[in-house]
Amino acid sequence: MTQIDFQGLSCPVPLRDHPNIVMGHGGGGRLGLELVEHLFMPAFTRGNEHAPLSELGDCAVLAVGGARLAFSTDSYIVRPRFFPGGNVGHLAVHGTMNDLACSGAKPLYLSAGFILEEGMPLDELTVIAETMGNAARECGVQIVTGDTKVVDAGKGDGVFINTAGIGLVPAGVDLSPRNVRPGDAVIVSGPIGQHGIAVMSVREGLEFGVDILSDTAPIHGLVAALLDAGIEVHAFRDPTRGGVAATTNEIAASSKVGFLLQERAIPVPDAVAAACGFLGLDPMYVANEGRVVAFVAPQDAERALEIWHARADGAGAARIGSAVAEHPGVVVVGTGIGGSRVLDLPLAEQLPRIC
Amino acid sequence: MTQIDFQGLSCPVPLRDHPNIVMGHGGGGRLGLELVEHLFMPAFTRGNEHAPLSELGDCAVLAVGGARLAFSTDSYIVRPRFFPGGNVGHLAVHGTMNDLACSGAKPLYLSAGFILEEGMPLDELTVIAETMGNAARECGVQIVTGDTKVVDAGKGDGVFINTAGIGLVPAGVDLSPRNVRPGDAVIVSGPIGQHGIAVMSVREGLEFGVDILSDTAPIHGLVAALLDAGIEVHAFRDPTRGGVAATTNEIAASSKVGFLLQERAIPVPDAVAAACGFLGLDPMYVANEGRVVAFVAPQDAERALEIWHARADGAGAARIGSAVAEHPGVVVVGTGIGGSRVLDLPLAEQLPRIC
Repeated sequence: MTQIDFQGLSCPVPLRDHPNIVMGHGGGGRLGLELVEHLFMPAFTRGNEHAPLSELGDCAVLAVGGARLAFSTDSYIVRPRFFPGGNVGHLAVHGTMNDLACSGAKPLYLSAGFILEEGMPLDELTVIAETMGNAARECGVQIVTGDTKVVDAGKGDGVFINTAGIGLVPAGVDLSPRNVRPGDAVIVSGPIGQHGIAVMSVREGLEFGVDILSDTAPIHGLVAALLDAGIEVHAFRDPTRGGVAATTNEIAASSKVGFLLQERAIPVPDAVAAACGFLGLDPMYVANEGRVVAFVAPQDAERALEIWHARADGAGAARIGSAVAEHPGVVVVGTGIGGSRVLDLPLAEQLPRIC
Repeated sequence: MTQIDFQGLSCPVPLRDHPNIVMGHGGGGRLGLELVEHLFMPAFTRGNEHAPLSELGDCAVLAVGGARLAFSTDSYIVRPRFFPGGNVGHLAVHGTMNDLACSGAKPLYLSAGFILEEGMPLDELTVIAETMGNAARECGVQIVTGDTKVVDAGKGDGVFINTAGIGLVPAGVDLSPRNVRPGDAVIVSGPIGQHGIAVMSVREGLEFGVDILSDTAPIHGLVAALLDAGIEVHAFRDPTRGGVAATTNEIAASSKVGFLLQERAIPVPDAVAAACGFLGLDPMYVANEGRVVAFVAPQDAERALEIWHARADGAGAARIGSAVAEHPGVVVVGTGIGGSRVLDLPLAEQLPRIC
């Protein structure tokens, strides 16, 4: 299992080799990370190395007026805008709420910034706005401020939506991508790969028939269920762009642990496995929009699984592996036939514009 | 001065006449307002008519964990990205900070969401990110969370930036676009029209030589100076898209007052006046990105002017008129030659993609 040479596995792609933005800079992989580490971080945090941004989490936790706030943002550019199981409006609400929830916060408020392309049909925009309003109301979250800009035809793509969110972190909750320790259980809240495959199945030039709906959904209930029960969770992460592979690699880098995952334990729906098979994709890299991965102290792993299994949105939860002290920063997957492989951080998303 | 027939001045353009988004929906005028009132507001605030969004301010004020937070968002799509006196990065920081400041808040934290077009030169992006970092540091504000997405070449326009901001509203401060009363003085913090003319002067197909730089700048110092001195300010507003005309019309509608402005009192730089002359524009409708309009109780107007005049960023401040009880909702400008005209809410911005 540990016969792998961990030297020379990395294939760094220095920023200077790409004088221009390429699609891969927007994926959940190495290229995007380099853009953040080499371009945005130095510009934004100079002179303040303990800045919240340098945590590189999906969400900042800030002390404001006596409260601890979670603050996060995401832009949504999925193509097509409507896909099996949802539309860009679901992602715009769930995606930002889920980033807040991963800090343990209760999501409270969202902003909504629209960049509309001239010619965007108003009836489609109405459906998307109604979707956002309904999704927010279902989660007890309010959309409280917004902005609309319009760009010329050919300078946008119908509608891009940015949402930013504010949540309140309960007293005593202290989660961070740096807190994971060897021995922690890795638990995923449900089957993986549905969102990515649902979007790909209707992507222009790639349509294929599949009975898979996007998993887009809020995860704050799953998060609160474990925290309220006193489960010792060290970190939560929603495996969106780059999938479970990117999530575990990022946590491995932040917490300086390794991960050993068991391929047979990873819940992959048959239809997702089949679609991945003929597309040549690995489901571990496919985006999810309604799943969360919990990194749980070993003594609480069983109880965490029980709590999730008792919920509709956690019925498919599974323990897929553990954090290990060996090979820090590297994620290894034990294959079904007794071998093992390194699950590297992808260079970029397998298919762009997935969320 | 009041010989105008205020009936039939409005030329409503119902949403149904535009089945698709047009450029005007992104201006600071009537079309954009209709999109908010008829499409976004019903979708987002259904069942909650006292929702913060229904205040229609540039910023929501929220009670969170014992503190009063200001929360605002804006997307920045200015073309060209670099213009005399600044670039899109300045706007992305100053614009959102200024919306926070208009609620009386001290701006604290920003998020930054980038939507990059494939092919965007990294050296330009670096300059823009450095600009944002420096602008934030100069204002004591931190960029704490972010997101990067990439769209295919031809589906974007280099870089669109969304920022959302959080500020802290000091105890006792209660500003609202609904609070302006007849008699209030209308004070603008400096000469108007510079940002819009600076951008237009380098707009493709429209280039002309002019010695005008964008006024892009933070305004929170101007706001705090009046509030700290105990000046009775009823509202602040930054006259961005749609200029001073849109600002006064929006306040007139929210506060149900009229405004009587004096054309000769309005500070318009000679170069702005000249450019407006040959472009056929009214400087009252031109966008500003570093000015603020204060609506001040009459007994404090002189002192407010003195305070601003003592500051470098308020040296050009001027009282340009008053709120009046007559013609509620209508802004009237006394012209230099003794006549008067109605300054209507524009249908749309005179030139799109100005910020």
